[in-house]
Amino acid sequence: MASGMELALMEARYAAERGEVPVGAVVLGPDGAVLAQAGNRVEELNDPSAHAEMLVMRAALQARGGQRLADCTLVVTLEPCPMCAAALAHFRVGRVLFGAYDPKGGGVEHGARLPFRAEALHRPEIIGGVRERESAALLKSFFQNLRQPGAGEESGRGG
Amino acid sequence: MASGMELALMEARYAAERGEVPVGAVVLGPDGAVLAQAGNRVEELNDPSAHAEMLVMRAALQARGGQRLADCTLVVTLEPCPMCAAALAHFRVGRVLFGAYDPKGGGVEHGARLPFRAEALHRPEIIGGVRERESAALLKSFFQNLRQPGAGEESGRGG
Repeated sequence: MASGMELALMEARYAAERGEVPVGAVVLGPDGAVLAQAGNRVEELNDPSAHAEMLVMRAALQARGGQRLADCTLVVTLEPCPMCAAALAHFRVGRVLFGAYDPKGGGVEHGARLPFRAEALHRPEIIGGVRERESAALLKSFFQNLRQPGAGEESGRGG
Repeated sequence: MASGMELALMEARYAAERGEVPVGAVVLGPDGAVLAQAGNRVEELNDPSAHAEMLVMRAALQARGGQRLADCTLVVTLEPCPMCAAALAHFRVGRVLFGAYDPKGGGVEHGARLPFRAEALHRPEIIGGVRERESAALLKSFFQNLRQPGAGEESGRGG
């Protein structure tokens, strides 16, 4: 069976094929079963908030009909941005595994470090750097292709 | 013609009638025309991220078919939480007017103060305290009713 991070990496690759910044995410239930999986759909949905994490947390709640994700694990290929980092608390996500660190755009281990702030409503268990190199390589290759003239359509998740 | 904040307050009242935490929001285009208006729908959609601000920013982009909201004003009855405060940057909102300050849950003038951080991608013009007392009174009355046994269904936007 594919691991959560393998599925998230697959979603990231699909996202790149759609011209989206390659980030993928999966929510696993308490028994490790996949509740939802999603990739970035910012361009497709014309929605700057349609990050993989937001889509997959929403889909996981719909899938289980529950109220929160306290017994679940969110697996995502990139360190969540501040919007997604704050949403982790709203969804009461129990555990987060992420791939590449994002020193510029991250909001978990970088920047505002929202889950670690005193006023945070909820703090998930957080494990970063899981298969970091594969996640980072996908992103690097995507942005290198964008910079080569004629190598693809101009994108821009815009942070 | 009703002002943006009047419409946002109306949306907050509708939200309370639906059993949602009473927060309402409006996006105004560069000419002051209403592009979208929304209230909280966390309970109805079973989506802890369905805050009025997220719904209205998404709807405004759909309405105008544009990419970003740099020439628009977001009007909201309560200081945005960190998730919504971070989303303001993703949507490149030009200006934010908010009603009541939220010392516990706010992420604009309180807590992480995301728009004012050095790494913020974009900083909207921000004006807080617009018709503050009316917004705060709506919230106070809503939570007082919740605490009175038999006075309504239990809610809980959960932050």
